[in-house]
Amino acid sequence: MKGQVQKGIQDYYADDFSYCYGCGRLNAKGHHFKTNWDGDRTVTIYQPEPEHTAIPGFVYGGVIASLIDCHGTGSAALALHRKNGHEPGDGTEPPRFVTASLNVNFLKPTPQDVPLKAVGTVEEIHPKKWKVHTEVYANDTLCATGEVVAVVMPENFVKKD
Amino acid sequence: MKGQVQKGIQDYYADDFSYCYGCGRLNAKGHHFKTNWDGDRTVTIYQPEPEHTAIPGFVYGGVIASLIDCHGTGSAALALHRKNGHEPGDGTEPPRFVTASLNVNFLKPTPQDVPLKAVGTVEEIHPKKWKVHTEVYANDTLCATGEVVAVVMPENFVKKD
Repeated sequence: MKGQVQKGIQDYYADDFSYCYGCGRLNAKGHHFKTNWDGDRTVTIYQPEPEHTAIPGFVYGGVIASLIDCHGTGSAALALHRKNGHEPGDGTEPPRFVTASLNVNFLKPTPQDVPLKAVGTVEEIHPKKWKVHTEVYANDTLCATGEVVAVVMPENFVKKD
Repeated sequence: MKGQVQKGIQDYYADDFSYCYGCGRLNAKGHHFKTNWDGDRTVTIYQPEPEHTAIPGFVYGGVIASLIDCHGTGSAALALHRKNGHEPGDGTEPPRFVTASLNVNFLKPTPQDVPLKAVGTVEEIHPKKWKVHTEVYANDTLCATGEVVAVVMPENFVKKD
């Protein structure tokens, strides 16, 4: 549980896709979630800031949802990248996913003062659509579960209205 | 779409429950979502900050999820308060809900530079458990839908581990 994910798939996204408030390395005010492999599962570790509270002492659900969201898109990117024969940092730009749907079940109040660990299992449901099942732990306590359906970002994404 | 919700149910939560990063009036760094009635529906209007981006020009999904989350608990509080014969500001402290589950479907990229309007329909599924169906609009475009199951905060909430 200790420590952090030093480098994540998010460190290798193209600059234009690196301003995400959740996981963009170029967003000065964001959370900077970083997701990488841990065996055949994916992991993101995050220490909420003091202001990320629901009621004092417990983490705000919207931050947990954000963690599950970016952990989901990052996990999908890792999985498709590996399927394509690549690993983070090998010089090939990874694919970038967007979130189609996000479901979160809040199981227990989540304590504020410990790092949260999101652990993901990735399932391919279509070559461009992946489902990521995530468990969020505070210490060894499972506090939330989530599911993200992530879709490869359409090339015309930024031109949609 | 213009303007804001001047006063929300969140302005009348007890002080101890007013530090939520999403909707707490006493959280100096939070979003300060405010939810109130608009006829028999509920509404929260929120202008994302410049840093709340997914990719430049579009709103981060985690902030949309946060909006749907607090709009959901706020809407449930409004509905139970009304069922109990009260309206915000009548001197009676409203009930406080927590989120059991949060589901979001992202339908379209959400533009960054306009206020978002969450519109909710509240359904009682148990005296202490309410479901809130929410649509999030940017101008007149439906960008996301969501569903929150909100539960009256247990009295021992803060003592759970």
